[in-house]
Amino acid sequence: MEDYHKPDQQTVQALRNIANRLRINCIKATTATGSGHPTSCCSVAEIMSVLFFNTMKYRPEDPKNINNDRFILSKGHAAPALYSMWTETGFLKESELLSLCQVESNLEGHPTPKQQFVDVATGSLGQGLGVACGMAYTGKYFDKSSYRVFCLMGDGELSEGAVWEAMSFASYYQLDNLVAILDINRLGQTDPAPLQHHVEKYHKRCEAFGWHAIIVDGHSVEELCKALSQARHQPTAIIAKTTKGKGIPAAEDKMGWHAKPLPKDMAEGVVKDLQARIMNSSKRLYPATPMEDAPPVSLRNIRMPSAPAYKQGEKVTHTVVAKSFENDTNINFHKVCCFSVFRYFCQIVATGCAARERNVVYASTLASFFTRAYDQLRMAAISESNINLCGSHCGLSIGESVCHLPLSSPSLTPDPGVCYIRTSRPENPIIYSSNEDFHVGQAKVVYQSTEDKVTVIGAGITLHEAMAAAEMLKKERIFIRVIDPFTIKPLDSKTILEHARQTRGRILTVEDHYYEGGLGEAVCSAVVNEQGFTLQRLAVAHVPRSGKPSELLKIYGIDREAICQAIRKMLSGSANAK
Amino acid sequence: MEDYHKPDQQTVQALRNIANRLRINCIKATTATGSGHPTSCCSVAEIMSVLFFNTMKYRPEDPKNINNDRFILSKGHAAPALYSMWTETGFLKESELLSLCQVESNLEGHPTPKQQFVDVATGSLGQGLGVACGMAYTGKYFDKSSYRVFCLMGDGELSEGAVWEAMSFASYYQLDNLVAILDINRLGQTDPAPLQHHVEKYHKRCEAFGWHAIIVDGHSVEELCKALSQARHQPTAIIAKTTKGKGIPAAEDKMGWHAKPLPKDMAEGVVKDLQARIMNSSKRLYPATPMEDAPPVSLRNIRMPSAPAYKQGEKVTHTVVAKSFENDTNINFHKVCCFSVFRYFCQIVATGCAARERNVVYASTLASFFTRAYDQLRMAAISESNINLCGSHCGLSIGESVCHLPLSSPSLTPDPGVCYIRTSRPENPIIYSSNEDFHVGQAKVVYQSTEDKVTVIGAGITLHEAMAAAEMLKKERIFIRVIDPFTIKPLDSKTILEHARQTRGRILTVEDHYYEGGLGEAVCSAVVNEQGFTLQRLAVAHVPRSGKPSELLKIYGIDREAICQAIRKMLSGSANAK
Repeated sequence: MEDYHKPDQQTVQALRNIANRLRINCIKATTATGSGHPTSCCSVAEIMSVLFFNTMKYRPEDPKNINNDRFILSKGHAAPALYSMWTETGFLKESELLSLCQVESNLEGHPTPKQQFVDVATGSLGQGLGVACGMAYTGKYFDKSSYRVFCLMGDGELSEGAVWEAMSFASYYQLDNLVAILDINRLGQTDPAPLQHHVEKYHKRCEAFGWHAIIVDGHSVEELCKALSQARHQPTAIIAKTTKGKGIPAAEDKMGWHAKPLPKDMAEGVVKDLQARIMNSSKRLYPATPMEDAPPVSLRNIRMPSAPAYKQGEKVTHTVVAKSFENDTNINFHKVCCFSVFRYFCQIVATGCAARERNVVYASTLASFFTRAYDQLRMAAISESNINLCGSHCGLSIGESVCHLPLSSPSLTPDPGVCYIRTSRPENPIIYSSNEDFHVGQAKVVYQSTEDKVTVIGAGITLHEAMAAAEMLKKERIFIRVIDPFTIKPLDSKTILEHARQTRGRILTVEDHYYEGGLGEAVCSAVVNEQGFTLQRLAVAHVPRSGKPSELLKIYGIDREAICQAIRKMLSGSANAK
Repeated sequence: MEDYHKPDQQTVQALRNIANRLRINCIKATTATGSGHPTSCCSVAEIMSVLFFNTMKYRPEDPKNINNDRFILSKGHAAPALYSMWTETGFLKESELLSLCQVESNLEGHPTPKQQFVDVATGSLGQGLGVACGMAYTGKYFDKSSYRVFCLMGDGELSEGAVWEAMSFASYYQLDNLVAILDINRLGQTDPAPLQHHVEKYHKRCEAFGWHAIIVDGHSVEELCKALSQARHQPTAIIAKTTKGKGIPAAEDKMGWHAKPLPKDMAEGVVKDLQARIMNSSKRLYPATPMEDAPPVSLRNIRMPSAPAYKQGEKVTHTVVAKSFENDTNINFHKVCCFSVFRYFCQIVATGCAARERNVVYASTLASFFTRAYDQLRMAAISESNINLCGSHCGLSIGESVCHLPLSSPSLTPDPGVCYIRTSRPENPIIYSSNEDFHVGQAKVVYQSTEDKVTVIGAGITLHEAMAAAEMLKKERIFIRVIDPFTIKPLDSKTILEHARQTRGRILTVEDHYYEGGLGEAVCSAVVNEQGFTLQRLAVAHVPRSGKPSELLKIYGIDREAICQAIRKMLSGSANAK
């Protein structure tokens, strides 16, 4: 980072002009559309102006350039402020701004990747800094490049725990390429933020979490230019004391103006007033050009050079599978460790790592802990993020761990979008050969004969129970077909219906979780309008308790015995069973 | 709080003895059962001993007494340490300890309310302090009583953001009746905690978040007694530097011993060694008796004295409904405001407020933000907590807000367990009279005639769309029945099937969210094995975008027009339509 050059007066005036044009644009756009957050935009006007025209290095004509500094508007409701900056750079047309939020416009109420200059969707507050951490980690440790990551946050979201997880992560990994700008405008949606304008308290918190923290007047372009250019060996927090609604006299620092566009006549008056503040400045500002030192990366057709070494019937733990990736020198295997207890935080860092196609990303934790971050997953989906999640130790059956799932597939680049893999813990034999090809939406028949009477569909541990049940029933001369759906969504309805027809329409689903929202209901959906099917279901009906896996499967009625019994009952109930 | 009386030497020795008996009990129990976390128990032995026999005031024979100090073992995996304390008080038999984790025992691997001395289930780390906040808030502001709340946390979970949300909450509300004890034993499950043994860093963080913080040697009963008795006007954090596995020489401060019971012979050696440290002390310790100043509360049959004042057809916002509760002086209406951005944090505080039946609790935020805390909800369910959640602004249709849901019911004490209410935002007319009686699991038919050809099931906004469609179709002489399922789980299958049979088995479900895991699949489940039904479904198939509610309902095909079209298609496809 270069030494600080104090901006000359012309530059200072030009930055102020940009800030006031931002205010004008945001007021006009939100009044025109009748929705949006103009007062939240006005508090960040100078911050945005300095970031985009004094601090950040990027190619304005090529927002996705891999060498560009990254910018995340964590307070996504200030989206018009972002659009206004890309109008200043010439990338967007000013006229487009007025179509904000319209159903036919790609300028949505919150930033989404429909715009090239948006890497990840924001708006669900408290998530931006985690994404920024993933990008900064990638920049520092994977890309080893000079691009930096800037994240603009609101003070409302600073109450979110996720922010402080990210703060810990950043200081632990010494992400000196990461800058967070905290817009302390005092007012939240319905209440003031708990720390109000006590910037010294924010300062104390940031420093306690291992950050370099600087308090500035968030409406002083000089102070912002200086603070943002200070060299450092830690992540840096710029604590900007600002006024919500700055530039709109009637709304400045007042409650009751959150998410309220100005009435038309009021907007006209304010815009006129702001226009008068824009001084002629001969100087036109251009963003600085980035260093060209990010390595090109292609994520297409990444394949393991050889299939994993385990064999059918062998028992291999999940950890061993991961290790085989690590030791494969043909694959650039990075491991990012998140210290959040169950590392669920990884999935938001993961979204950052996956941005701009820098990495193939897998994030893993215990399945139940992914439930802590459904909102993060929801945002990853809106961000069209290509992250892959593996939830282990799923369901009742917590014991040891084996996986027969897509990790055994030689392809490392699954379909785009968020992909979720559910693995169980108890040791079970490997079902497939290590060369087996798997495809999303393609079920496998794992047990069959010509005399099958019922089609049983299980997944994970219940698939193994179904196979064991098939062996047991064979001794009674009852034959069943067993299907591994492989993916629940999309479900291979065709294969299921086809095979179930061969077993006179009889289907039994067995799942290691509650009745609602899983395998059984998916199969219900597939057969509900088909003629001649009978569907029985086994699932967990009550909140489970502690115990050994096999005991629990038995108690909650989803083990091999329960399957056998359900099948005997299905067959005894039907006249033409044999 | 009284002044500090230094414990005499006999007391100190008795406390040490209790700590070492805790170690012995935990080692024996985990070795006998072959599972558990003995080293995590050993680090908290002195902390537990001092808390239970020097600090806390409670009636050991009556763990649920409303005047007792509350204790939450946030690091729930140290459950045997908790069980050991209740053995010391005489509440549990020592022999019971050896049945730990067995499927027939109520001493589960993590604390659950199956034990009287457990108010909320713990074990999913990072949640205990939030619950403690709810209890302390209730003690200070609702009960106005002298009982205090103690929460013992591990250092692993201090990486969880939820902990820092709770820290903010506690200092904002000046919960001077709340004490957190931080067991800084350095080692997590697979890695050291990021701050290792840097207790001064924890101190800085706690102070920055507005707590009084005291560093102690966590194995010194004298230091613990002193620190825990210090008077204060803030929440207090005792930062206890401890050794994981303390008392087990081979495991002390060593990685690789997490969640590992000692092998039998090793356990025997360690137990012998620990027994030798237990000095004869004539003094037997008893916990101090609590003040009897918590008011008795009965949550049975709480009813609004009159039905809400709104009328059918009138448009009333959600906020207005809440206000009518507030202004009703016959109901003790408390409002706890959580400053976490979307206040989802409230739902964990809510679990604390609901403990020991002190309050009827409703927690509300935007529906999508509840997804941030599914794990907290999961734990609330395991805790058998009676909290009621209201998720507003659900689905596509974010506009204004009306609710026709159970808030209009005059009963304020719904069925036990976690209850979730989903409300939509756009203004829609009130459907029911304010005296209408609602029951969980009981659907309402809101539109019908003798000539109905299709049964349409909607919920929230789509119910209104279905009713509008019924009006539109009437003009074409097509009649439909419209059902409000009222609750999705449990679903009133009986009413649905009964009415759908009257419309020749034709059902159309319309829901304002994705196809998976909602109303449509629930109805699928209900009809899948019934003869003569045809089920069509309308739901959201793609990740939605910004726009006006009515535009979005149209784009994603769940509006009145889409319903009309689907019905026309269903009828044109069937020969006997009319």
